[in-house]
Amino acid sequence: MSILDIHTPTVRRRLVQFIRDQMTAAKFEHGIIGLSGGLDSTVTAYLTAEALSPANVVGLILPYGNSDDESQEDAELVATTLGIRSQVIDISPQIDAYFARFPEADRIRRANKMARERMSILYDHSRVHQALVVGTGNKSERLLGYTTLWGDMACAFNPLGGLYKTQVRQLAEELGVPEVIRNKPPSAGLWPGQTDEGELGFSYADADQILYWLIDQHYDIEQVAEKGFPQDLVAQIATRVQQSAFKSRMPRVPEM
Amino acid sequence: MSILDIHTPTVRRRLVQFIRDQMTAAKFEHGIIGLSGGLDSTVTAYLTAEALSPANVVGLILPYGNSDDESQEDAELVATTLGIRSQVIDISPQIDAYFARFPEADRIRRANKMARERMSILYDHSRVHQALVVGTGNKSERLLGYTTLWGDMACAFNPLGGLYKTQVRQLAEELGVPEVIRNKPPSAGLWPGQTDEGELGFSYADADQILYWLIDQHYDIEQVAEKGFPQDLVAQIATRVQQSAFKSRMPRVPEM
Repeated sequence: MSILDIHTPTVRRRLVQFIRDQMTAAKFEHGIIGLSGGLDSTVTAYLTAEALSPANVVGLILPYGNSDDESQEDAELVATTLGIRSQVIDISPQIDAYFARFPEADRIRRANKMARERMSILYDHSRVHQALVVGTGNKSERLLGYTTLWGDMACAFNPLGGLYKTQVRQLAEELGVPEVIRNKPPSAGLWPGQTDEGELGFSYADADQILYWLIDQHYDIEQVAEKGFPQDLVAQIATRVQQSAFKSRMPRVPEM
Repeated sequence: MSILDIHTPTVRRRLVQFIRDQMTAAKFEHGIIGLSGGLDSTVTAYLTAEALSPANVVGLILPYGNSDDESQEDAELVATTLGIRSQVIDISPQIDAYFARFPEADRIRRANKMARERMSILYDHSRVHQALVVGTGNKSERLLGYTTLWGDMACAFNPLGGLYKTQVRQLAEELGVPEVIRNKPPSAGLWPGQTDEGELGFSYADADQILYWLIDQHYDIEQVAEKGFPQDLVAQIATRVQQSAFKSRMPRVPEM
């Protein structure tokens, strides 16, 4: 039993209700979701289909060319399994048209441009389908700032935003998400072979617990280290949280 | 003397200080601004150049092809007058690459896609220049929701966000903004001949006063109408403000 264990049937019921409440408040009937083939967008699609019925959910699959056919197949599997409408839109024509003028751009610039392009396409199609954009970010990513500002976190509401990555995985089992999706290493799909944990330099298993003690329990760095984590890792994560806070708030406006 | 008259030297001093404070807090030295040739981005550029010195400001001019050469020339005039660095990046290759697949898209979809593309390019270049994106939205647009979500209002901070459009115009005179820019009708440049006031269906002169009574003074619709405005216009503006509130907040996350 871990401090991060959740009662998955309760969380499922609450999140389905959250999605319904948000749609009702905004007077919308349809939801639109970017499907990456990864765990978070899959779990979000499962919850949204349960909340709104599959007929009211659209999944957009937004690959960069054929750079990751496996993820695209997984995303298509999710759409087929749930019986939601889906559409594949290749983002490479726009991305390539842009970077043809900036060939020196590093992979971080390319990754951020792609994340914002996906947001832009989701919002464009939300207008076509009269749908709200349902976000797919989790609490670990939010706190760590492991997101593209005005990109992957931009949405109408964010059902998984209160769950750590390890908790999303528990919920995925409850929902019956296919094992092929549950078992693959988390990846933002930013470049071939990229994994979140490789890029972050620590595991979600560690980070989620450290975040829980730091943020939810308001422990200081030394207290968290006493729970059995390397103090420099705890300090590194605390710094990340602090330096990423700007990604979770609207732009500041002066009081006049 | 109007209720919206401001003491422009004081406002200028405060906003210059606001910009400096925001840069210091974020530990950045450079600002980057999208220059449209319009009033708001020009005033923002003047304030930012005064706050940071022109050498620390980059202006990006992001036209859609040659659709509006006059605005582009005005934007270039601003950059030259201030002595800031500037760069022109045509957004049409990406926009055209996208809409080639959606030729049925109406002009609203095209306008929103362009606003988000400009945001995306500004953020991409903010990384290149190690700069913060300085926003250019005013209080009238913010309250009326006359913006593209995750587009033109996306920035690190927003110096003019507390000023109504008519107040930005007063400040422009104080700053010595060229008359050619101060005197042209406000336009988001969404399509040829587009003006804000034509699209909104009312003038900023009226809207700003109505917003002042409704929002800053917390009057109800009837009380504002008694100030000398048509009651249906006041009601229309009140509804717009209410229906646009979602654009001013981060996506909702469930409390778990």
